[in-house]
Amino acid sequence: MAKLTVAELVERHRPTLEAAVAAAAQRGFWSAYPESPSPRVYGETAAAEGLAAYQAYLGNRFPLDQPGTDGWVATERSPYGPELGVSYPHPDVEALLAAMKAAMPAWRDAGAEARAAVTIEIVDRLNKRSFELANAIMHTSGQAFVMAFQAGGTHAQDRALEAIAYGYAEMTRHTGSAYWEKPQGKRDPLKMTKTFHPVPRGIALVIGCNTFPTWNSYPGLFASLVTGNPVVVKPHPKAVLPLAITVAVCREVLADAGFDPNLVCLAAEADGERLATVLATRPEVKIIDYTGSTQYGDWLEQHARQAQVYTEKAGVNTVAIDSTDDWRGMLGNIAFSLALYSGQMCTTPQNFLVPRDGIDTDQGHKSFDEVAAGISGAVDSLLGEDARAVELLGAIVNQGVLDRLGRAEGLGSVVRPSATVAHPGYPDAIVRSPLLVALDAKDEEVYAGEHFGPISFVIATDSTDQSLEIFRRTVGTHGALTAAVYSTDEKVLDAAEDVAMDVGVALSINLTDGVYVNQSAAFSDFHGTGANPACNSALTDGAFVAGRFRVVQSRRHV
Amino acid sequence: MAKLTVAELVERHRPTLEAAVAAAAQRGFWSAYPESPSPRVYGETAAAEGLAAYQAYLGNRFPLDQPGTDGWVATERSPYGPELGVSYPHPDVEALLAAMKAAMPAWRDAGAEARAAVTIEIVDRLNKRSFELANAIMHTSGQAFVMAFQAGGTHAQDRALEAIAYGYAEMTRHTGSAYWEKPQGKRDPLKMTKTFHPVPRGIALVIGCNTFPTWNSYPGLFASLVTGNPVVVKPHPKAVLPLAITVAVCREVLADAGFDPNLVCLAAEADGERLATVLATRPEVKIIDYTGSTQYGDWLEQHARQAQVYTEKAGVNTVAIDSTDDWRGMLGNIAFSLALYSGQMCTTPQNFLVPRDGIDTDQGHKSFDEVAAGISGAVDSLLGEDARAVELLGAIVNQGVLDRLGRAEGLGSVVRPSATVAHPGYPDAIVRSPLLVALDAKDEEVYAGEHFGPISFVIATDSTDQSLEIFRRTVGTHGALTAAVYSTDEKVLDAAEDVAMDVGVALSINLTDGVYVNQSAAFSDFHGTGANPACNSALTDGAFVAGRFRVVQSRRHV
Repeated sequence: MAKLTVAELVERHRPTLEAAVAAAAQRGFWSAYPESPSPRVYGETAAAEGLAAYQAYLGNRFPLDQPGTDGWVATERSPYGPELGVSYPHPDVEALLAAMKAAMPAWRDAGAEARAAVTIEIVDRLNKRSFELANAIMHTSGQAFVMAFQAGGTHAQDRALEAIAYGYAEMTRHTGSAYWEKPQGKRDPLKMTKTFHPVPRGIALVIGCNTFPTWNSYPGLFASLVTGNPVVVKPHPKAVLPLAITVAVCREVLADAGFDPNLVCLAAEADGERLATVLATRPEVKIIDYTGSTQYGDWLEQHARQAQVYTEKAGVNTVAIDSTDDWRGMLGNIAFSLALYSGQMCTTPQNFLVPRDGIDTDQGHKSFDEVAAGISGAVDSLLGEDARAVELLGAIVNQGVLDRLGRAEGLGSVVRPSATVAHPGYPDAIVRSPLLVALDAKDEEVYAGEHFGPISFVIATDSTDQSLEIFRRTVGTHGALTAAVYSTDEKVLDAAEDVAMDVGVALSINLTDGVYVNQSAAFSDFHGTGANPACNSALTDGAFVAGRFRVVQSRRHV
Repeated sequence: MAKLTVAELVERHRPTLEAAVAAAAQRGFWSAYPESPSPRVYGETAAAEGLAAYQAYLGNRFPLDQPGTDGWVATERSPYGPELGVSYPHPDVEALLAAMKAAMPAWRDAGAEARAAVTIEIVDRLNKRSFELANAIMHTSGQAFVMAFQAGGTHAQDRALEAIAYGYAEMTRHTGSAYWEKPQGKRDPLKMTKTFHPVPRGIALVIGCNTFPTWNSYPGLFASLVTGNPVVVKPHPKAVLPLAITVAVCREVLADAGFDPNLVCLAAEADGERLATVLATRPEVKIIDYTGSTQYGDWLEQHARQAQVYTEKAGVNTVAIDSTDDWRGMLGNIAFSLALYSGQMCTTPQNFLVPRDGIDTDQGHKSFDEVAAGISGAVDSLLGEDARAVELLGAIVNQGVLDRLGRAEGLGSVVRPSATVAHPGYPDAIVRSPLLVALDAKDEEVYAGEHFGPISFVIATDSTDQSLEIFRRTVGTHGALTAAVYSTDEKVLDAAEDVAMDVGVALSINLTDGVYVNQSAAFSDFHGTGANPACNSALTDGAFVAGRFRVVQSRRHV
């Protein structure tokens, strides 16, 4: 018997749902989940309880009672050092998908309002476990704790709620039933009643990534679930725990509300097993959300033809620097954007395009070398003390990033070498500061590729016009999740905005304050556009949710 | 200089746009374009003028001043007999697409409101030319005149307006600009202004079909155009004229409103040229709307990977007959649905599933044979007089349908042979009445395929349960655009509705009056669902429009 009635949940969460739907349309600041990990917000004991909950998982089997388990896998080691030693159920795919499919009709028939209420309840309970999730995210992604709490916890929860709001709005944009009366001149009118059912497409697959296991998975997970689809979550083998906790919370709430918990299941895999490929090509899987490499994202788009595929891949995030009236603000803002999580965000800027003759600023003309040195110096200042630096940098997520960083020093003239930073709390953590390499416009074969990690290029161009040409060409061809421009000349800003529209990338203009190009705010900023090769969808717009269900109608004469 | 200001058009069409957006949400009866070809509605001279306009095209070059013309092609012969002899510009694809691409930025920058107003003006002018269009549709599709006027004229115009309303609503669901202020505790809040631009995806390709050149093309054409994309229209070589007129009207209105007429161009081809394949795989083409064979639709979905592909293909439209309290009404309704345009609608029912032990009706129990004979007799009654019959049947659209009809007589036991009907006005017209063939449930390899044309099967099943199983299996596997059920038992109706939801097909229940299973009303009925193999999209829902544009934002500190 259900512990919660759906009616109670609908009542409880209606104000949040209505506020979220309105906020998504108005796009001012709005958040349901406070980002401050302060005891005044989350309670005096929350931090300690969250840490204890996290620690209780270590070395144990993760408690997940889903069907079709044929073994257990443990694949995680913290970028801060220790093995996690948590083992997860490994699925028999046939049995797991069969159980999930069986759960679908009752969830479909519950309707949009019930599904919205139940999914918001899930997000609320995830919010209450933000400290537990933050520890799990920190020790799988390498994010510093506060970032893990915010980006992986509360911001991810806001993105989840955003996806729920869009899905609900899309399902309810049409009436559920209608009376239709067509005049027939002098004869009696034709009269019908019609019913419109939103029906799910099938099983949805979410493929998680190593760096942002929750933030990048929640939009797809909740968009699919609210629109009626069961969701199987395939985490990155190095970042399972945050999604295992998420799946457990989903299952708990679904069961409490009287639904089949198998609507959400985990599909953990052994390293190198390629379970994503097995799942992605199953006929039952009709929706796929993926974050990760361009290569595998492109493969999914080409081969998982039975499914709607939503991908976020990689690109060359670009900043054109033409001039500024706030030299210090610009440098500080750029430095922060490079240092945050050691540049391991899909939104971190990589290519800084600077005229070789330099730029005008409120501190006088600055040569190309002065601009490069200015960014370098601002990074140095920001990361002055190791204890503070590690709270920004976090740890290097995996060996691939380290290898790339090593190679990148040979790609051009090093402006700022990447330094090893000692972590006061975790002696085994691998922490590196940003590398800055100077290139010339002609080195396009280097900077036109993505160099994921703490690697950025300052590129000398003939002029801002050439900078914008390179912006257009590289982003148009290779994609980007973010772009920025600095200029005091409105004509340059307009030209940059035209390029941004033409190549389909979000543009940040003259960021010198506390907003950074790599951050996007739920309910206000779209993450990605779907209009360039870096991703085929945006978080979150109508296109992200509209294809996850279909309307099936019936009609009869009155 | 523009003959019309955009502001005037916005003002003029705002009431229609607002009413259309509201109607699409409410889904009661609503139409902007009267379907009656009466002189009282369209004026005393409209019919004669429309006929004269049509006749003026015959034997001449179609007046279309688009760029990149490298020759002229004439490919049409009326199913009622005469060659049309109209020749159309054949495009140099490179030059045509270049001109279309150049037209895009100004159309994008005009914004959603302007584009909605201009596109509604186009539809209004098409409406004023409904008689001209009806003649062109009649003599390319073979539809009878009144059907050509309604389905190809006013109903297609309503579907165009519906697509415009959805596109406009989707583009304006978010604010165009927003002020964002994020509290920072005791520090000053962060403040930004943000701008959100809907940007088009690129050139849109519409691939027309032979039977419904306008009705099936307008939703994609207008959905793409209103969302900012130039549209190249590739008509079926046997049904060019209705779309050439449409393109000419689009170009006239665009030019009158000060836009580049190359936003809409025609791409006529010689028979067998495969121009659709050339266009569909061009990198500039980002959206494709297609109606036609399953084989080519599947090919497009697989191979036109650079584009969003919206297809309407074929399926096995199914009717389960369990019982009825209106025997006469049921038979009359079914007979009309079979006779209308000689069953050459993608929505015409093909498979009638009837228990071999017969059904209960208000006229007593009827055996399987009596049901089959009842449908046959109702068709006979409906088509009693040739002069009346041809106004329902129209003409056979092409030799493929005739060939298929010839073969179908050997597929089972003929209940009602297809008869040749003499057309009083067009002695060369090929007119055939519906063929009805009895099959057994075990003949699934026959009835699980689509037999497009005036070909239907009455299939003996063990029970209504088996009928619903066959419905589920054949529609689930092969798709359907329509389904229907007749029963006096609410449990059977509920079971049928469950099957319809599971396999994703719209269900008509107990149609005995003046609404037919093969008809769908714009703003109320969705045509197709996108949830079964017959089509990957629905006319029109959010999913049909949301992917045709993307939102590109910019933001800056205040």
